[in-house]
Parts: sequence; structure tokens; C-alpha cells
Amino acid sequence: MKHFFNRRDTIVMEAIDGLLRTAASGNLGRIDAYPDIKVVLRSDWDKSKVALVSGGGAGHEPSHAGFVGKGMLTAAVSGEIFASPSSEAVLTAIRAVTGPAGCLLIVKNYTGDRLNFGLAAEKARAEGLQVEMVIVADDIALPELPQPRGVAGTLFVHKIAGHLSEAGKDLATIADVARRVAADTASLGMSLSSCSIPGQNHEERLGEGEGELGLGIHGEPGVERIGVLSATELVSIMAGRLAVHLDPGARYAVLINNLGAVPPLEMTLIANAVLNSALAAQIELTIGPGPLMTALNMNGFSLSLLKLDAERTSALLAPVGPHAWTPACKVRPLAVVPAPKGEDLSAAVAASKNAAAEQVIIAVCRRLIAVEADLNRLDAKAGDGDTGTTVAIGARSVQDRLADLPLADTSATLSAIGSILSTSMGGSSGVLLSIFFTAASKALQGGARLPHALLAGLARMTFYGGAQPGDRTMIDALHPALNALANGGIPDAAEASRHGAQATAAMRKAKAGRSAYLGDDQLLGVVDPGAQAVAEAFGALAKVGEPA
Amino acid sequence: MKHFFNRRDTIVMEAIDGLLRTAASGNLGRIDAYPDIKVVLRSDWDKSKVALVSGGGAGHEPSHAGFVGKGMLTAAVSGEIFASPSSEAVLTAIRAVTGPAGCLLIVKNYTGDRLNFGLAAEKARAEGLQVEMVIVADDIALPELPQPRGVAGTLFVHKIAGHLSEAGKDLATIADVARRVAADTASLGMSLSSCSIPGQNHEERLGEGEGELGLGIHGEPGVERIGVLSATELVSIMAGRLAVHLDPGARYAVLINNLGAVPPLEMTLIANAVLNSALAAQIELTIGPGPLMTALNMNGFSLSLLKLDAERTSALLAPVGPHAWTPACKVRPLAVVPAPKGEDLSAAVAASKNAAAEQVIIAVCRRLIAVEADLNRLDAKAGDGDTGTTVAIGARSVQDRLADLPLADTSATLSAIGSILSTSMGGSSGVLLSIFFTAASKALQGGARLPHALLAGLARMTFYGGAQPGDRTMIDALHPALNALANGGIPDAAEASRHGAQATAAMRKAKAGRSAYLGDDQLLGVVDPGAQAVAEAFGALAKVGEPA
Repeated sequence: MKHFFNRRDTIVMEAIDGLLRTAASGNLGRIDAYPDIKVVLRSDWDKSKVALVSGGGAGHEPSHAGFVGKGMLTAAVSGEIFASPSSEAVLTAIRAVTGPAGCLLIVKNYTGDRLNFGLAAEKARAEGLQVEMVIVADDIALPELPQPRGVAGTLFVHKIAGHLSEAGKDLATIADVARRVAADTASLGMSLSSCSIPGQNHEERLGEGEGELGLGIHGEPGVERIGVLSATELVSIMAGRLAVHLDPGARYAVLINNLGAVPPLEMTLIANAVLNSALAAQIELTIGPGPLMTALNMNGFSLSLLKLDAERTSALLAPVGPHAWTPACKVRPLAVVPAPKGEDLSAAVAASKNAAAEQVIIAVCRRLIAVEADLNRLDAKAGDGDTGTTVAIGARSVQDRLADLPLADTSATLSAIGSILSTSMGGSSGVLLSIFFTAASKALQGGARLPHALLAGLARMTFYGGAQPGDRTMIDALHPALNALANGGIPDAAEASRHGAQATAAMRKAKAGRSAYLGDDQLLGVVDPGAQAVAEAFGALAKVGEPA
Repeated sequence: MKHFFNRRDTIVMEAIDGLLRTAASGNLGRIDAYPDIKVVLRSDWDKSKVALVSGGGAGHEPSHAGFVGKGMLTAAVSGEIFASPSSEAVLTAIRAVTGPAGCLLIVKNYTGDRLNFGLAAEKARAEGLQVEMVIVADDIALPELPQPRGVAGTLFVHKIAGHLSEAGKDLATIADVARRVAADTASLGMSLSSCSIPGQNHEERLGEGEGELGLGIHGEPGVERIGVLSATELVSIMAGRLAVHLDPGARYAVLINNLGAVPPLEMTLIANAVLNSALAAQIELTIGPGPLMTALNMNGFSLSLLKLDAERTSALLAPVGPHAWTPACKVRPLAVVPAPKGEDLSAAVAASKNAAAEQVIIAVCRRLIAVEADLNRLDAKAGDGDTGTTVAIGARSVQDRLADLPLADTSATLSAIGSILSTSMGGSSGVLLSIFFTAASKALQGGARLPHALLAGLARMTFYGGAQPGDRTMIDALHPALNALANGGIPDAAEASRHGAQATAAMRKAKAGRSAYLGDDQLLGVVDPGAQAVAEAFGALAKVGEPA
């Protein structure tokens, strides 16, 4: 596993500075005591309310510095990666933010954090500050462990205590609520990989087909190995373990946490699985999915559940300053709206007859079907040899639908041909021709003469397709043909298209379409099959007017 | 690379539903046309303003569905992973959100997207709707490519066009601004891994020491291989490539995009490197870092730069509904505040004499130094055999500082011993003893008698350390000793501590401290060395009163 960093010993400081420099809230600062003391704090804090201080080892970002701001933490103390900050660092944070209203320390249940935050608390008390501490031990992975780890459920405490502090509640009240919130929280993690630490060798302990359930946020081994199951099965297993810790009659908030390297696509898929799981019946609020308390680059996620009451629900829903907090969302039915009905323009116009138009269409289609093998041969020299077949398929599809076409209405006929080709030919060429005919139809309807309407279609095709004359595509025949048509007649167009197609043989570099990926020497001397198809079509068109 | 999903063919639908069910804004819905048509749209949209529709292949989440909401997109059309949505899907989205004010399509420059969005636009126009399209081609990786790819810079267009739509501007104005924004945007990506697709075999094309510069968001190979350099060096190379595309006198916004699997810790470190790079002089706004336009699980990032003017700056700074947009942040100096000065309680009290106290301290320290080897031997049976050494180091450090202690002031002396031990002993035991002495000092100062003050210290040590009597720790000697002291005298305390220490030999399971990780049979019959140290200390204390 590779990492973006400079030096191992400056990672945390650089990351904190990057956070401070890009946090839009603009009210964050840090204490000037690098490298020993790494404290992020609200720069708009006036100590009039209860201060909330959390922290711990780094590697769990945005926890905890990302949650400093209005309505959440007052300060966050960071250690090095996965190592507790010193008691001196914690004490410095307490001193910086604690006024007469006092300070609540929110500590994840790891020995190092408990002791260092604890010693800092005792020293701060000795200095006369009011300090309380709540220990969060929400991980249910190891049911026999007398001291469960503190993981992402800690964020429930940050959020609810933050709301109460903002509302001006006193320290005793906030500490009491925080302790009860911590007690009513249960979390469980799972991962498909362990995490690696920047600058350290990493040996992945999980095999190709293995995942781990109940692992901690420091890469500690999980409580059990499981197979790489479907997202639904994984969530179902986790739901079963968590359900044991739920009060059957109660309502819950679920926090869906990306442990570091799960792509957003998969995180919302996991969220969907959670809301389809057995837990869903009790879930009233969701928070996330998102990276809330990560474990470096762990490819896993955790679920944290908090029992709700009215106070907790409104505290969780309250807006906050830190953007890292993903706002809580009330569970509600999916809003699914019917697909709008469009005017099916081709179906809207009834079939009609027009002998001249029919003759033209038949002639062009027959010709394009006849040259299938020739065009394929041309294409085989520079592509995959199927241009002739694609063109013939398109021509046959139009021929087959001839009786349904509104031939008396040229605009409607062009539109219908566009629809037929986009379906029958498929791929880029089908869509390009469909754009050509659809836009030409629209221009004709708008009052343009046919040659100018076709030029308008060409302009749209050029715009969307991106090819210009000279790029070795069908445009090289179509562009001169339509210009000749507008200024002369069909025989001029036919001749111009033939010249245009021939000229592609001398074009050294394709700039669009598939041949753009080929070298010069593979192309030189070969006529572009798309341009040749256009020339064949105009050739056929010109013959319609001639004596048989 | 392992992925969280159920079935390949339902990934995108499940992910979209998960997004809709957890988006706090609560104003998102989707069109009822799964699986062919995957369109997310604002459910609060009244068609009175210009609709903004974007989209493309999936795998780039939160792009684009995550950016649907007030002030950004009106609808997003998703294809399957890395595959353009059909023109029918795009047309459905256009029909659903377009009113008299018209619709702007914002399309990344990939052939499939251009054609399918293009055909949909032409069909919508044929139906009488006003539709414009802007193509974003911001990737500078391949300077010779006539059609640069569209990548994360597309989000500048979403944001600015979204702001103008919200402000009630007309379609022509918005389309014009959007095209100029697209033209003034330059992006470049780099990665340490390619991305893998759920359910497909993946072969990593990058070696252990390789990264790739200028790769696309679909896992296409980059323009060049580079070594795994430091973050600063990588950013510097990218800054050099991007600088060529900047107007020297102009100000820029930079969007710092996580391509999928970079941990948040490293993303803010990268942001810091960007703001220390040569680009910084021209950067006025930052957006991110965050996952804005990902490429599944790519371990890489991209930088996108937009030339600013007053209109663009205020549009970028305007708040929006979608949480996936990380608010723009004005570049400003780091707020660094001085570390607060605490009362250094140990230094505050001057050294003073007290013969009795001195005698006690010397006796205890000598004894603890004398039993170093014995305690180490005990510890070796269940731990790493260093308890005696740690205790002796602590005892020596107190002995060495005897002349500096304020011995006439017991509270100050306890506090000073706490400070000395936390520094000299280090580790958990140093902090625990420091908590004990600091809290006892505070209680003594508050008026408690010495034995009760020491019990208060024990209570804090127990709370922070988490061990209870019976957990096979020093508490098992300290707890009975201090209770005996409070109810009797020093000889009672000494005897109680001796009994307490002996009792640990019969404790089958350690519940706290290091031995918690050992099996029962390794512990049985072995006295806990921490408890034994306490018994030795009280034994020495008892001898002070006896005749020599």
C-alpha cells in the first residue's frame, strides 16, 4: 500500500495545517507548540460556555480535529499516528479553552488516552479548573472484554454534547447526558483489508477471500475472519451482532462510517443495505455514509447505533459548523416519480406516401447494402472491419420500416430515420446519424430549405461528435457534399462526396473516431470507410435522377 | 482489490437508492424507470428556473447525483460503471426538469457522453424544449489530444451555473458563463494505483515504486510513469504542468479531489503541499480536499484550477444544498495562537525541609531500589520482566530530586512527586502514579486528611486506569493498604498490602493492564509485581517508625 506523505515525523502536523488552511468555516486555529503539542481549537471561542475537548491518536481523520467548530468540539488534541497525545498536550488544550463554565473531555476507551487525558484532567483540576471526563466504549466486537474499545460511536457524544454546550447547558448536565449517550451506543466494524501506516512496511493479513469482523480502528485483528460475502450478507451479520445490544422497543440513529478507503459508490450501496436490513425497523435517523472516524486506508466500514429520545434526536439534527459532520437524515420512503411522457415524434406522424422520396430511400439503402463487403475490407485496414456491416444494418432497418414512414412529410421522415438508425446501428455512428437526421428535421420544420436543413444537421453532428473536416471521418465526404448541394445540385454533391472520400486516403492522422488511436503509416493510402459510405449514398442518389 | 457490492448489475441502482435514502437535504427523488434509466432529480423543482442536467458513467460518486440540489444540479443521469447513460435516459431527465426557462446540459468530454447527451438534446429540441450543452474538457494531461477529457473541473461548471440558475439568470447567459468557465479550467490527476471494478478481475499495472501522472478517471493509463515521490515533490511536478495553463496575472480557485481511496489524513497533507507549492501565489480559493469526482478506489488525487473573477468567486462561495460539495475556503494565514501558560504547581512552591517526610521518602525509595531484581523476576513470569526496573527508576528520580521538594507542604510534595514520576517512569505506570499523587494532593489541599486524600487519589487512578480490586494489578495491594491506613495506622496498612499482594497469586484472570492478554495458567501462583512493589513500599514505611 502506497501513501502520500513527506516524512513520517511531520505527517500529522502537515495534515493538521492542511485542514486548517482549507476549512471553510474559517474559525479554526492551532496552538503554537509544534511538534510536541498538536491542538486544533476554535479561534472564535470566548470560554463563556462549556468547552468540549476530545482527541487521541492520529490516523482517524476527520476525527477529531475535523469536528472542531460551532455545535461540536471546542478543541481536539492529536497524538502521532495511532498513539495517544501526551498529558501535557491535553492539559495545554484544556487550559486554552476552559473558562468558568468548565470543560468536558470526551475520550475513547484506550489505555493511553484514558491515562493521558486523565492525568491532564487531574492537573487541570489542581489548577482550579472544572473538568469532567466521559469515556466512550462502544465497540461490541469483543463481548468478554471488560473494557470495550471506543470507536465511531464517540461522534454521537461529540454531536450531542456539542449541541448542549451551544445551548448554554452546564457542565454537570452535559457530562451526565454525554455519559448516558455513551452507554446507549453500540458499534461494530468490518473490513476487507487491514490498514497500512505511511512509511512502515505492511503485510496484509487477510487473504484474497477473507474479510474481518469486529476489528478496531488501529488495525488490531478482528474478532473473527469471514469470507468476502455480498454487501447484504455482511450487513446482515453485523445487524445480528448489533441487535443483541438494542432495546427492542426503542428507536435508533445509525452512523455509517467509511473506515478509510471504501469508494463513495460502495458506501451508499452499504447504506442502502443497512436500510434494508433487520435493523431498519428500529432506525429513525441516519448519519453518513462518509469518512467520520477512519483507520488510515482500511477498506472497511463501521455501523454505530444510538438509542434515541426527543432530546438526542433534536441534538443530532441541529446544524453545526464542521463540514466533516454529515447531517443527520430522517428515514423516509424513497421519492420515486413517474417517468415523464415525451412526444414520440416519429410515432406521432402517421405513415404516408411519396413516390419520389420512396425511390430515393430505396436507391440509397440498396447501394449501401451492396457495398457492405467493400466497406468492411476498407475498414479492416485501419479498424475492426465492420463499418460495412454496421452501415448495411442501418440501411436494411430503414428499408424494412419504409411502409411506416410519413414520406409525405420530409421533416417527419428525417426524424423517423434518425430514430430508426439510433436503435438499429447502435454505437457512435448510429447516434451521430441520428443527431444528423433529428437536427435536420428540426431545421426543416423551422422553415429552412432541405440542403440548409441538412447542413444544420451536419453542424450539430460536428459539434457533438467533435470531428472536423480533415479528421478522416464521414464528415470529409458529407461536408463537401452538402455544401455542393446547397450551391448546386445532386450531381455536384455526388462528385464532391467522391472527391472528399478519396481525399481521406491522403490524411496522415485521424483526430477523432476510432482511427485516432492508430499510427500514420497504417492509414496512409486507405480511404476512410465512413466517408466512402457517404460517397456511395450520394452516388446512388445521383443515379435516381438519371435515365435507367 | 475487494469491493462491497451484491451483484454487478445492481450496483449503481443500489448506490443511488442509498444516496437518496441518506441525503439529509430531503429534496431528492429518482425517476421510476429502473434499470434502464437512472435519473436523480430535485423533488422540489418547479421548472421556473433554468434546469441543469449532468451525468455520465457511474464510478465517480458523489459525481454527479451527489451534487443534485439547491444551487447546483437539477438532475443527474447515471450510466453503468464507466459507461455513458443512453440518450433515452438523458432525454427522460431533460423532459422531467425542463420548463419554459430551458435546460443546460453539462457534459464531460467523452465520446459516449457527448453523443448520448447530444442526441437527447436534439430530440428535446425537436419536442420544443430549449436545450443548450456545455462540454467540459479540462484535463491537461495529454497536450496533443485534440479532445481533452473532462474531469473534476466539471464541478466548477456545476457550481457556478447552479448559482446563476438559482439567481434566476436566463439560459443564454448561464450557457455562456458555463462555456467560459469550462474554457478557463485546467485539471491534472495522479495516482499510486489504478482502480479496480467490482466483480472484475484486476491486474495492477503500477509496480511497488511507481505512480502515474495524468491518468483519467476511468483507469485509463496515465501520460507518464513516475516514482513514488514525496507528496511535496508530486505536487510540485503537477504544479509545473498546470502552471503552463495559467494566466500569470490571474487569481485561481483550486479544487483538491480525492480520486477514491486516499485517507483523509493524507488528503489534508496534500492540500497543505498544494498551498506551499508554486501555485499558491495565485490561489485565492480552495475547494476540498474531499472525494468530489472519484474513480472507484483509485489511490490518487487531482487538482483543478479555475481562473477567477468577481462573479465566479461569489458563485463559488455561495452556500448550496448538496453536502457533497465542500464549501469554498478563502486562502488566509494559518491562525496560530500562543500556548497558554499554566500554573506550574510543582515549580510554584519553593523547596523546604521536613525531617520526618524526608526519612519516609528515603526509606521507601531505598527499599524499591533494593527489590528491583526481585520484582523483575516476578514480572518475567507473566510480562516482559521490567517492572522492577521501572519502579527503581521512579524511586531513584524522587531520591535525586529530594533537595528540591517542598517537604514542609505535604500537598505540594505529593504534587511534585506526581510530576517527577510521570516524566521519569513514563508509560502507563508513571501516568497512573502521577494521577494518584496529583489527585491526592488536590484532595489534601481541599481539606481532606492524608489517608482520605490518598484514597481520593486511588479513586481517580481507578477511574482512569479502569482496574478494580481483583483485576491483578497494584490496586490489589494499594486499595486494602489505604483503607487500613484510614481506619488504623501504618502497620495495619503494611500488613494489608502484604496480604493484598499475596492474594494476586490466586487470581486466575487479569482484567486490566498488560497481563489481561495472558492465559490463566501462565498467571496462577505468581504474585503481581506491581502489587508486590506497593507491599514493599508500605513495608518500608512501617519500618521507619520502628526502632532501628
